[in-house]
Amino acid sequence: MSTNAHPLRPLRWVTSSKFTGLELIDQTQLPNDLTHLKCGTVDSVWHAIKRLSVRGAPAIGVAAAYGVIVALNETGASSDWRTTVNKACDYLATSRPTAVNLFWALDRMRAKAAELDESSFDAARAALLAEAHAIRNEDAAMCAAIGNAGKHLIPEGGGVLTHCNAGALATSERGTALSVMYAAHEDGKQFTVYADETRPLLQGARLTTWELMQAGVDTVLICDNMAAVVMREQKVQVVVTGADRIAANGDAANKIGTYGVALLAKAHGIPFYIAAPSSTFDLSLGSGDEIPIEEREADEIRAFGARLTAPEGVRVYNPAFDVTPAELIAGIITEKGLISPVSEANIRETLAAADAPSPAGPA
Amino acid sequence: MSTNAHPLRPLRWVTSSKFTGLELIDQTQLPNDLTHLKCGTVDSVWHAIKRLSVRGAPAIGVAAAYGVIVALNETGASSDWRTTVNKACDYLATSRPTAVNLFWALDRMRAKAAELDESSFDAARAALLAEAHAIRNEDAAMCAAIGNAGKHLIPEGGGVLTHCNAGALATSERGTALSVMYAAHEDGKQFTVYADETRPLLQGARLTTWELMQAGVDTVLICDNMAAVVMREQKVQVVVTGADRIAANGDAANKIGTYGVALLAKAHGIPFYIAAPSSTFDLSLGSGDEIPIEEREADEIRAFGARLTAPEGVRVYNPAFDVTPAELIAGIITEKGLISPVSEANIRETLAAADAPSPAGPA
Repeated sequence: MSTNAHPLRPLRWVTSSKFTGLELIDQTQLPNDLTHLKCGTVDSVWHAIKRLSVRGAPAIGVAAAYGVIVALNETGASSDWRTTVNKACDYLATSRPTAVNLFWALDRMRAKAAELDESSFDAARAALLAEAHAIRNEDAAMCAAIGNAGKHLIPEGGGVLTHCNAGALATSERGTALSVMYAAHEDGKQFTVYADETRPLLQGARLTTWELMQAGVDTVLICDNMAAVVMREQKVQVVVTGADRIAANGDAANKIGTYGVALLAKAHGIPFYIAAPSSTFDLSLGSGDEIPIEEREADEIRAFGARLTAPEGVRVYNPAFDVTPAELIAGIITEKGLISPVSEANIRETLAAADAPSPAGPA
Repeated sequence: MSTNAHPLRPLRWVTSSKFTGLELIDQTQLPNDLTHLKCGTVDSVWHAIKRLSVRGAPAIGVAAAYGVIVALNETGASSDWRTTVNKACDYLATSRPTAVNLFWALDRMRAKAAELDESSFDAARAALLAEAHAIRNEDAAMCAAIGNAGKHLIPEGGGVLTHCNAGALATSERGTALSVMYAAHEDGKQFTVYADETRPLLQGARLTTWELMQAGVDTVLICDNMAAVVMREQKVQVVVTGADRIAANGDAANKIGTYGVALLAKAHGIPFYIAAPSSTFDLSLGSGDEIPIEEREADEIRAFGARLTAPEGVRVYNPAFDVTPAELIAGIITEKGLISPVSEANIRETLAAADAPSPAGPA
């Protein structure tokens, strides 16, 4: 990140004499330890996704695509490579059944395999690895394009508030919401990012602050319930978050708490933006009412690690996401440009357009 | 609590052959352990307040009042007991800057001491202990009266949202905001309390759920960032919180996050109430802008127990309180009745009135 030669990449395909396979940052260990997991079996890739060692919808898709190559390496040269590919795709699809990009990436791998009539194992493996690399590189380019499309929204000398982690760690590199901040930072803008810690899993505290600090972006950690005061004290002039799914009318599902942040921003006259690639839109859904909201385990709130922080057996309500209505969203920053105002017509027009000219993104 | 014979009392003056002094529930250990701290030195009282073993504006006031007696016991019989009283008051006043009840209680102790011309040490000590008991008992009666003044606001078959802990643990008994809920519960109303966990110190998760469950009140724990969704889903029809200091115009300082909750309530058309005794009003302050806001240590947010949950050295903004403007407050529930609408004239009129008829509260 920043302008240095080593951008943060949560996933890497490694080929060496010692190890060939998928290497990824174990995000469950951040920020205390920066450790890398080497996944040389399809099973280890499945578990890395399941236990959130790799997280963020785009990053999960990339990990799964590489997981198919890991499976081919594991079984070794065989004329029956198609069976291996299909079994690996079926298996990997069960790791996080709600992540749309996971199915999208695996479908791309299956489609590529279907094109490869009569290929030898080596040729098929090479073609599928190229497809996985393409998925990764296209994601990285989209993230870079989102940064360029939104960087003008970051106020010189001001502050930005973000929620959860929509950063490099959630994608191939640079992220979505954080890509906007990295691009502004690279342009030399001075600003401060206020990062909501994002209960219950603290992705903001653990991941967003970590990667922003690595990049040299001025960062202040706050509890979720401090966002309103930070706005009232005029410490922030804009809010940018990611999204997990966006309906045709612009209603956007994102990490729990985003809807409240959007309401608070409106109450203070602060524009609230979503940054997301076009693959996040689900135009089959008319509005956010149709987006299913996952409810997660009570112990995410009741306990901290092994330590109970609430009475045993207390009832808990733990929705993982909420929906921000389109009318609270000033704009949606995509790799194809900024959609503003947010309306179904503007969304369909932007998504139908050709890609914006590719920025000088990483290969 | 409830109608049982053993109401929850966080503070007790103990006189026995083994120990004479202030005994209090160590709220930092709840809900895992119900342990009692024995404070036999003024220093131990100061630290108990500072580290939040005892917390909640009214409870802090009571603890400080008893702290003066602890100081007298510590120095022992002396004709110079006035110096001890004044030094203890000066010292205890430095423990927490925002809660006005602390200064109010210490001023009462100073005033009582000033009345005691030429008293012997023993006579002075007895008179001052009686004053501390009076502060405690009046607080308990005020809490019971607040419950009666506000219980009609709790919706039968509905939901109430509260933030932080304005319960028995924050007062002498019954609490302020929670007293309203206890009174409604004792009247046989069925309702659910949604308790914000209240980061960073989790008073909602650790204390509010614990005491509500003890009393048999239906309780659901949520993260602070879920309040907006709970409101949107119409799970709650009213919000009631406590306050630490209320200015003459009705602006109310309370635990960080309260202001945001009030804004979210307004956005959903849900009335937001404050419950607080008249000692919480500071009519010398024209508005909330004049209320000093304590900023606490970064590690309250950066770490959880001994475990870092954010990068070492990350900048943190950690205001302990925020101010909710009067225009967001539907009413202030006091022991003298409900102030609604909230205006300086209505506040002054209510506070000037004689006490409401005392309910059958605990002695």
